[in-house]
Amino acid sequence: MSESRETIYIGKKPLMAYVTSTLIQLANQPKISIKARGLSIGRAVDVAQIVARKTENAGYSIGNIKIGSEQLQSQDGRSRNVSTIEIEVKRNTS
Amino acid sequence: MSESRETIYIGKKPLMAYVTSTLIQLANQPKISIKARGLSIGRAVDVAQIVARKTENAGYSIGNIKIGSEQLQSQDGRSRNVSTIEIEVKRNTS
Repeated sequence: MSESRETIYIGKKPLMAYVTSTLIQLANQPKISIKARGLSIGRAVDVAQIVARKTENAGYSIGNIKIGSEQLQSQDGRSRNVSTIEIEVKRNTS
Repeated sequence: MSESRETIYIGKKPLMAYVTSTLIQLANQPKISIKARGLSIGRAVDVAQIVARKTENAGYSIGNIKIGSEQLQSQDGRSRNVSTIEIEVKRNTS
């Protein structure tokens, strides 16, 4: 692996749990991705914004943001699309 | 104005109302922005994904995505941060 990279998946835990996980990962990696889908997308943006605010003086910032969609099989057997987001937080190269 | 640009703000209307507004704007402008904050952020991603899927054969795609936060005054007088998103959908220049 030429580039180490870690992903934080946002679910139903309290927001600060994900903020803490992200900060711990950022102490070890130059770049992490915060991922979420569906109703958790807003929370992923919250986590990224809180992390960015807490680390901006240490030289981190929001990187690429990607959105997409995934097909999920619902319980009645039909498939439906769910939106996804991936937000990168990275150490600035200076 | 050297660059015409329109913004669609996502609120509580049915999703397809925003999809329709966005498609109408895209017929007239080379680039539009879909904006939302707080709980509407996930819906903004949904709208952008639906529009992108409907227009990809016509040469449109998702452009820059920005996240941010705004300070809101809550009713008890305290201020709190709310996350924001801005998703660009644009005609591909070829």
